Amino acid sequence: MNSYYVLTLFPEIFNTYFSIGLAKKGLDKGLFSVDIINLRDFAKNKFKKVDDYPFGGSSGLVLQVQPIMDAINYIESICPDVVFFYPSPRGEVLKQKKLFEISKKFDKICFLCGHYKGVDERIFKLKEIKEISLGDYVLNSGEIATVVLLDGLLRLIPGFIGNEKCIMEDSISSCLLESPNYTKPREIFGEAVPDILLSGHHENIKFWQMKESFKKTIKSKPYLILGRSFSKNEKAAFAQAKAEILKELYSGG
Amino acid sequence: MNSYYVLTLFPEIFNTYFSIGLAKKGLDKGLFSVDIINLRDFAKNKFKKVDDYPFGGSSGLVLQVQPIMDAINYIESICPDVVFFYPSPRGEVLKQKKLFEISKKFDKICFLCGHYKGVDERIFKLKEIKEISLGDYVLNSGEIATVVLLDGLLRLIPGFIGNEKCIMEDSISSCLLESPNYTKPREIFGEAVPDILLSGHHENIKFWQMKESFKKTIKSKPYLILGRSFSKNEKAAFAQAKAEILKELYSGG
Repeated sequence: MNSYYVLTLFPEIFNTYFSIGLAKKGLDKGLFSVDIINLRDFAKNKFKKVDDYPFGGSSGLVLQVQPIMDAINYIESICPDVVFFYPSPRGEVLKQKKLFEISKKFDKICFLCGHYKGVDERIFKLKEIKEISLGDYVLNSGEIATVVLLDGLLRLIPGFIGNEKCIMEDSISSCLLESPNYTKPREIFGEAVPDILLSGHHENIKFWQMKESFKKTIKSKPYLILGRSFSKNEKAAFAQAKAEILKELYSGG
Repeated sequence: MNSYYVLTLFPEIFNTYFSIGLAKKGLDKGLFSVDIINLRDFAKNKFKKVDDYPFGGSSGLVLQVQPIMDAINYIESICPDVVFFYPSPRGEVLKQKKLFEISKKFDKICFLCGHYKGVDERIFKLKEIKEISLGDYVLNSGEIATVVLLDGLLRLIPGFIGNEKCIMEDSISSCLLESPNYTKPREIFGEAVPDILLSGHHENIKFWQMKESFKKTIKSKPYLILGRSFSKNEKAAFAQAKAEILKELYSGG
């Protein structure tokens, strides 16, 4: 069973995340376990202080080595195979492929949530901690970044999403953005669902969805297609997508 | 004053986020206002259902046009200048520069949180909604993506972070990753704080931090440096960073 540990100053955010929606359902189904650990429990002073000002005169507060080390040692004692991840702009930028890789390779993960100014650098010398970045932007809280990683990883656990097909169907996993979705009613505020989706012709629908996926991807994230291999059907859908985009450009649409 | 609106099926996650840490402090200080709106309040059926299966036979559930339209109309009625953002892998990939841009340009923002399979595509024809992507990966919940956007935007509000200097100092904002941080004690588990940080020589410390920033950036995200202009001091720090990396490579360190 997948086990997740979170080392944090703000357990509330995780308690809420795991009390709603699919995360709660997955937990209730016993698909994974989760242990939210408060870093302050490892403070050795009566104020439960775990951070201090950085040497060298920068601003902000830095998490100290001792409470983190003690917490890591504790987590390693209850789960010897655990690996540690630390969300930080310094890490490798997350991609869906990386999520698949992490999900396949590690089933016991502890996330260390940084404070605003991060953690004392020595922790990375003392323990093996993998840094990972959500993207090239700065957040206040490592908690939020950790929830993103959890949200991306949990859905790859078999059984987590009701229908496994979803994971493969959806955007990015297939190196494509998702085709547009439509639901009831058939017409609303003068806008109708595309006829093809109501045709019941499964093969045509699949082809249309693939073509629309290509169109979205070419327009928004063309680099996702680079290096991708195409089936015969995909080649045809790709060609049609390109033709339709050209036509839109010429008609000013 | 900055005003944020969130249209969501899971208000709990936002209620928690705004009840802790800097987000709570900022709210208490009156730096911004926030209004968490439950999409279900706009359902027109007794089950408060706001989603349905997609046409065309895909799996998952899609948020329907009517409750979203009614909610958007309501939000526009109480805040006419509001702009709408929808986190989705189809959007432009977020960068720090984009966060600065959004923060400068818009002070009334509503986030529409998608459900697993997203929203009925017609909503984008009926209303102007900007799509934005955290990165090339898939999450379950638009709520989590919205919290990331909020967390990145709030810290750019003047006064939100105690020390404004932080924003400019920190990683990415300056197109560089942050230099390592150290805090008390000076030595722990055999690891000492670099002497330079204890020297009290402010200029030398700044130079060392700049050099370490360059080293981190060259090693992890060299592309951040591309197109960057250098001050004289930065040029010298950059040269030394490169020299030290080469030396490490040759000594196998």
